[in-house]
Amino acid sequence: MKKIILRYLWLFVFVATTSFSQNIQTTFSPDKNIQLHTKIDADGRFLYEVIYKNRIIIEPSSLGFKLNKPNVSLRYFEWMAHFESTKDEIWSPVLGEVKSIKNHYNELIIKLKDKQNPQYLLNIIFRVFNDGIGFRYEFPQNQALKHLIIGEELTEFNLSGNHKAFWIPGDYDTNEYLYNTSKLSDINAIKAAKAETDIALQSIIGENTVQSPLMMKTDDGIYLNIHEAALINYPVMHLDLDKKSFTLSSHLVPDAVGNKAYLQAPCTSPWRTIVVSDKATDILASKLILNLNEPSKIKDISWIKPQKFIGMWWEMHVGKATWQKEGGKHGANTANVKTYIDFAAQHGFDGVLVEGWNEGWEDWFGNWKENVFDFVTPYSDYHLEYLTQYAQSKGVKLIMHHETSGSATNYERHLDKAFELMKKYGMNTVKTGYVGKIIPRGEHHDSQWMVNHYERVAEKAASYQIMVEAHEPAHPTGLHRTYPNWLANEAARGNEFNNAPHLGLVPEHETILPFTRLMGGPMDYTPGFFHFRLNQYDSTRTTRVKTTLAKQLALYVTMYSPLQMAGDFPENFEKHLDAFQFIKDVAVDWDDTKVLEAEPGDFVTIARKAKNSNDWYLGAITDENARTSSIKLDFLDNDSVYEALIYQDGTTADWHTNPESYVIIRKNLKKNDLLTLTLAKGGGCAISLKKLK
Amino acid sequence: MKKIILRYLWLFVFVATTSFSQNIQTTFSPDKNIQLHTKIDADGRFLYEVIYKNRIIIEPSSLGFKLNKPNVSLRYFEWMAHFESTKDEIWSPVLGEVKSIKNHYNELIIKLKDKQNPQYLLNIIFRVFNDGIGFRYEFPQNQALKHLIIGEELTEFNLSGNHKAFWIPGDYDTNEYLYNTSKLSDINAIKAAKAETDIALQSIIGENTVQSPLMMKTDDGIYLNIHEAALINYPVMHLDLDKKSFTLSSHLVPDAVGNKAYLQAPCTSPWRTIVVSDKATDILASKLILNLNEPSKIKDISWIKPQKFIGMWWEMHVGKATWQKEGGKHGANTANVKTYIDFAAQHGFDGVLVEGWNEGWEDWFGNWKENVFDFVTPYSDYHLEYLTQYAQSKGVKLIMHHETSGSATNYERHLDKAFELMKKYGMNTVKTGYVGKIIPRGEHHDSQWMVNHYERVAEKAASYQIMVEAHEPAHPTGLHRTYPNWLANEAARGNEFNNAPHLGLVPEHETILPFTRLMGGPMDYTPGFFHFRLNQYDSTRTTRVKTTLAKQLALYVTMYSPLQMAGDFPENFEKHLDAFQFIKDVAVDWDDTKVLEAEPGDFVTIARKAKNSNDWYLGAITDENARTSSIKLDFLDNDSVYEALIYQDGTTADWHTNPESYVIIRKNLKKNDLLTLTLAKGGGCAISLKKLK
Repeated sequence: MKKIILRYLWLFVFVATTSFSQNIQTTFSPDKNIQLHTKIDADGRFLYEVIYKNRIIIEPSSLGFKLNKPNVSLRYFEWMAHFESTKDEIWSPVLGEVKSIKNHYNELIIKLKDKQNPQYLLNIIFRVFNDGIGFRYEFPQNQALKHLIIGEELTEFNLSGNHKAFWIPGDYDTNEYLYNTSKLSDINAIKAAKAETDIALQSIIGENTVQSPLMMKTDDGIYLNIHEAALINYPVMHLDLDKKSFTLSSHLVPDAVGNKAYLQAPCTSPWRTIVVSDKATDILASKLILNLNEPSKIKDISWIKPQKFIGMWWEMHVGKATWQKEGGKHGANTANVKTYIDFAAQHGFDGVLVEGWNEGWEDWFGNWKENVFDFVTPYSDYHLEYLTQYAQSKGVKLIMHHETSGSATNYERHLDKAFELMKKYGMNTVKTGYVGKIIPRGEHHDSQWMVNHYERVAEKAASYQIMVEAHEPAHPTGLHRTYPNWLANEAARGNEFNNAPHLGLVPEHETILPFTRLMGGPMDYTPGFFHFRLNQYDSTRTTRVKTTLAKQLALYVTMYSPLQMAGDFPENFEKHLDAFQFIKDVAVDWDDTKVLEAEPGDFVTIARKAKNSNDWYLGAITDENARTSSIKLDFLDNDSVYEALIYQDGTTADWHTNPESYVIIRKNLKKNDLLTLTLAKGGGCAISLKKLK
Repeated sequence: MKKIILRYLWLFVFVATTSFSQNIQTTFSPDKNIQLHTKIDADGRFLYEVIYKNRIIIEPSSLGFKLNKPNVSLRYFEWMAHFESTKDEIWSPVLGEVKSIKNHYNELIIKLKDKQNPQYLLNIIFRVFNDGIGFRYEFPQNQALKHLIIGEELTEFNLSGNHKAFWIPGDYDTNEYLYNTSKLSDINAIKAAKAETDIALQSIIGENTVQSPLMMKTDDGIYLNIHEAALINYPVMHLDLDKKSFTLSSHLVPDAVGNKAYLQAPCTSPWRTIVVSDKATDILASKLILNLNEPSKIKDISWIKPQKFIGMWWEMHVGKATWQKEGGKHGANTANVKTYIDFAAQHGFDGVLVEGWNEGWEDWFGNWKENVFDFVTPYSDYHLEYLTQYAQSKGVKLIMHHETSGSATNYERHLDKAFELMKKYGMNTVKTGYVGKIIPRGEHHDSQWMVNHYERVAEKAASYQIMVEAHEPAHPTGLHRTYPNWLANEAARGNEFNNAPHLGLVPEHETILPFTRLMGGPMDYTPGFFHFRLNQYDSTRTTRVKTTLAKQLALYVTMYSPLQMAGDFPENFEKHLDAFQFIKDVAVDWDDTKVLEAEPGDFVTIARKAKNSNDWYLGAITDENARTSSIKLDFLDNDSVYEALIYQDGTTADWHTNPESYVIIRKNLKKNDLLTLTLAKGGGCAISLKKLK
């Protein structure tokens, strides 16, 4: 009810003020489907409103800041000037889902000054795309406001109703939660977070605080995604929900002393993004967040390569081996890793990740110790030089692992020497990790200092021509455009949580991730588990992988990443080499992507055309419900025949009772053929389509 | 009155419990003048008592910890065992006041276990020397108490009365206060700190919190100094005073989240030190703190050299030049620095410090910015390569300056490259600086993280064969024994405060520093100001140097440091080249030292024998009062004649009205001659004694 009043209030005020004020602007998306209204109200509040296809998506919402230095609130403004422009360009990502990306928007820049303190200037920059809007704050060059400390950002997203939301609890230190699906009014982040006993370190914020990307669906079928782009020199934005007005407010992650960000004008905030469509598939196809990031800062990109890899890693999770050397089950010993190299070489993988290779694993977890790893000292049973040479002789590269134990200060001290060691041994990719409470103590995984740290690591890695993927970082915001060597991140609950003893994973999880976590960039989800009952090496374990085997294959297509792991270990792959063929075949870099079907929490079907190839790969996944769908192959070339290998759930397949049942069907297909996909409960389907001449 | 009761209480309990308990120990100093009593009382408190020449110096005082992890207090103990031993050795410092140092003590190690939680073990180690006692805590190898977080250390020093104290306010971030002299009962640290408008950054603790070294004098003439030795991996200890019981309690400096220290057993606390004597001169001669530090960790010490230097520095303080390039008064330009090199070469100085040589000075002060300096980029008008080569051709070395702006994280990131640059250009000494609020934010100059930082810098510098002196670090605790390349520190109000507009300096200051700040190690006090009215380049200035010129010379002897600056700049030295001769002649490393006279707050007279030389140098200083004293030259060699050059205050000299008046008297002297020193108000006397054959 309140919403309706507000809506009319805005229209009233909007109309009423036009007669005496110039401070009202309407900016349209290029296709006119989206309207942005901006104005200053009678009190001086700056308000924006977003309308999509004549439905209000964001009701009048205010913007501003509370500064801690100078101690002043920037809430009431005078509209000094505004500038409009249009951009329409095509650019090509270094690695990506498509060959080229259209960046087409209408821009509105509004120059404001503070009403009480007119010497303080603030600009707001809006870009209205066909798939949504982005806006950011800019503190222009301004002697009166040169060094500033952000106390809080006062950005509001005043939603138009009690939408269905796909949410995880707001948390300063982890984003590895299972997704909750509920009405906004039913969000209880503390209750959800407390149920998460699988997560070792939590810094829960409040009952009504959730994380972005926040995916929502309105009662009338509009899909809405709120996130941020280009998170640089700023903390992560979480979202506080007011359940009365359904207003989301920015909640920035504090530093050790409670400040949010230290800035120096001229400077900008990250972009706040609203992706909107009446088709769920459009949300997944949106390139808005990438478009709002800066082009590559790396000039020579010749060394940046998409990769598939296996790794000495899952053995430790399931209890076959240990990271630490102590105890006699050390996984990363020379002989073991050699078998991984052999397997990788035999099956055409680019890399072998080795975790637990270096001294320090005996004593750190949970202890908040600053000096644990030095990132250069291998365990005595791990012959780094021999193994890197052996790998090289087989055409494989070892992937470095830098678990920082959360001690970023310690990592930064060793970073140059660590990267020099990698270069010495010909290694070009590192997996970083931030398990545990952060050092500098009082900082969080999501605070400004750490956001800067992740970027620093990516930038320094680039100076050594090293590719990076980070585990346990802040949520991605499209920075892989600016740092294309920053291939992927974890930053969400990954496939490894199949091994977690409590909530673990659920079959719908991978149908939500593309709408949430993946909006910010590629995820190292580590699909490819082929063994489902995880008591193989420890009979007391009851945990299990909660998908079918075919779904594990489909994830290579539905979860985009230019760095894809085959998560299981060789002895499990060898039991299903026919299915493993799909992982060997599937591409990790693409010329084109078609999101064919999608509904968050229910299903995702995507087809992708491999880079510099005529071959397509298709992945379809479902949640806990079985599903049949008919796909029209209208994306294939005219007059061509494709040899399809269809990896589908067996007729009795079921994630719970019979996950290992699959069939592989070979058939020839051509454009516009109808293909029926039959997915088991928790199942999936993976298809390779090789063009026959 | 209460004190008397307590004293008898202890004796009573001590006697009464001997009959049924073994947990009472008396440990004597080698000369028997000091007695240490230790025991467990009926409640389980561990108590120690110190008696000097039959007078109680420390009344029964308890020890222990409040831990934050595990959440437990270690206050009540069971005495498990104790061990006694004696050490008597002689060792030689790499650089120092004397050629060899006697380390002679009786040691008592007491093994305790917590009464409530007997799985928690704690040892206390006492060493009783002739000049005082030291004690430390040890957490032994103990699985039950392996990783611990110190919430507070519960060390007490229960003083025997309302002593006269020489104190500065407790402060987490600065020790650059003027000393206050008062009865303990009259301490008001907040009032004193608030009067200190010359200090830019303060983190005052409380009305009754003061810093160590705390110098005291009892009503019956006993001198007592409380400090700490070997401050490693632990925060600075300040002292909370209970004015009712005159008990001092340890107050550790917190980190960003309020914890005090993160430790891992086995480990030890720093030593808590009590230096005691009925002669003030013995306090200055004490080597107890050095004896409690570990021997040099640096094996090859051939590159560690004592040094005298001048510098591009004071010009900026007095307004002749600026650190920043902007504005047209940049001091550190190639031409200016060349004149310093020429002057240094002409007068036999080892080094030339250059501040303001590198980019970044335009914008940092007070802004808490993380990334200011990179420590490798010279201003465009400073030709680093040319100047280092030019200096080398003249037999002089440039001294590097690394102002960190308090951003230790940034400094650590650049440290290797910064030291590599120094080595490339043949520089072997760096002056570091920590002006401003610390980054990591929430840490303090005195917190554990920063204590570790200073040590890390010294250790890494050593790996590059670089000598260090730090400005604005935590108070020194004798670590120059362990890191002899860590030549000196500021860590107190230095001579530069003569330029401060408010409290500035007072004539007694240098008579207190040897009893306080210098107990922990050498200070880069930067004596040698030859121009006294500091309006030379800015006629509006009213500040002035508050000593006579002769006193400026005497400080080279009274303020020990192996790294001594001649603080003023060449054009001022050139006006008094006859007096400057003393600075040229005086040694900075010594074979012997005789503290001839001393009273904190009043006067200090010290004679030192130069390293590998037969020559002696004598310095005598006084406070605001004129002073005459008769010195017997009983330290000179038998049957030898010494040519003395006596730099003394002129007959009308007075720090306030006529500071530049001095006379230089040449005479021959021999052993046991009586020499009358006549010191003006705020004056001093410096004497070189060159042995003639």
